[in-house]
Amino acid sequence: MFAEILTVGDELLTGNTVDSNSAFIAQRLTERGYWVRRKTTVGDDVEEITTVLREILGRKPEVLVISGGLGPTHDDVTMLAVAEALNRKLVLCEECLERIKAFYRELYEKGLIDDPELNEARRKMAYLPEGAEPLENTEGAAPGAYIEHGGVKIFVLPGMPREMKAMLEKEVLPRLGKKKFVQRKLLAEITDESKLAPILNETLERFNVRIHSSPKGFGKYIGIILFGESEEEIERAKAFMESKGIRFEEGW
Amino acid sequence: MFAEILTVGDELLTGNTVDSNSAFIAQRLTERGYWVRRKTTVGDDVEEITTVLREILGRKPEVLVISGGLGPTHDDVTMLAVAEALNRKLVLCEECLERIKAFYRELYEKGLIDDPELNEARRKMAYLPEGAEPLENTEGAAPGAYIEHGGVKIFVLPGMPREMKAMLEKEVLPRLGKKKFVQRKLLAEITDESKLAPILNETLERFNVRIHSSPKGFGKYIGIILFGESEEEIERAKAFMESKGIRFEEGW
Repeated sequence: MFAEILTVGDELLTGNTVDSNSAFIAQRLTERGYWVRRKTTVGDDVEEITTVLREILGRKPEVLVISGGLGPTHDDVTMLAVAEALNRKLVLCEECLERIKAFYRELYEKGLIDDPELNEARRKMAYLPEGAEPLENTEGAAPGAYIEHGGVKIFVLPGMPREMKAMLEKEVLPRLGKKKFVQRKLLAEITDESKLAPILNETLERFNVRIHSSPKGFGKYIGIILFGESEEEIERAKAFMESKGIRFEEGW
Repeated sequence: MFAEILTVGDELLTGNTVDSNSAFIAQRLTERGYWVRRKTTVGDDVEEITTVLREILGRKPEVLVISGGLGPTHDDVTMLAVAEALNRKLVLCEECLERIKAFYRELYEKGLIDDPELNEARRKMAYLPEGAEPLENTEGAAPGAYIEHGGVKIFVLPGMPREMKAMLEKEVLPRLGKKKFVQRKLLAEITDESKLAPILNETLERFNVRIHSSPKGFGKYIGIILFGESEEEIERAKAFMESKGIRFEEGW
């Protein structure tokens, strides 16, 4: 049950913006039991996005979450690229157009913009790949899209973190079922990470868990994350490691 | 002159860590005139890393910077994967082993660890792909590696931000020449991003620049980043946009 994440935006490739979106999406998918196998970032370029989308679809993840490039400017081309990669047309979503209209009308009435009318750039956001289900954007203008294609659940979300997060919580996660993957963070008291390695390897062989370890300062602690399908399996793995002489503290 | 960045680490795919390393690397490469075309993140898994490395090498970037997975634990497997992807052996770097030995000896003398000896896990870090040039880690134990392969300059750096940054500045950038790409951040006073689009498009057609725009709050400003090979070209593009009625402030 693996997932991939694609973030789109020139600002991510110039380093002007740190990609916190993909970490947020990864965290939510991990909690739902998905193994996020790869994250990719490309710029606001139809050809680049189309190419990477075809590569991802070829790996057949169960879920693909895309974030970024849905706005009204010349460099917001993600929906166009998704349509191309799936060999679908972009079609007008009437319901989306109504929402976009209402959104700008409201900004106008609040005195935030000086023109409430739908121009070409604003209309553009109402076009989704044929067969896509629109995802409501409660925080901004551009709708997202949900498309099932060749067994892959594709979610297209905006790049503004506030908009992306709201859409992920309200529109994406409810479509992904309830199963939770459990993770436990532990702090191992050990003076050197390298001494831990053989014990971790034996734990991996004996129990149905995944383990991530990282140093938390020399000479004191190693941070451990145990991933498993149940609290019980994690508890058993932890007890085994303790029987090998590792002392844990919870959390970090 | 394009570059790619690969970050390696399970913690990046579970969302436990935000990948600020790749943004830092991207920024430095952009300043040097490289167009960072794609960033990819995979987990601490030899097969995944090897697969993605072969894909990247197939796209023939001029530069590939890899960060993460060089430490002593069971899940630090990046050097092994690099060697596999390049069909090279891992060979002991004697000079690296001496440095690693000295590094742990120093920690021991400071009372930070209770065993200064080189065990298997520590020795592991001294193995680099055959033909690689070691990159000095002034902040930690694991050396990096520089490999030229099939026209691609490959740099393998640690994942700990402090170690990665020092190695990037001291060991990578001096190997990439001096050419600087110029970027200018401007704040456009305009009430709606969509009105800017036709002016941006005309600017892109007329001048040898790239433009990134992103909203900085409704009804006030649009952030613009202009990229170009010289200050002069950027100045000309800016003057053209001003002649079309856009008012700019510097920086954001």
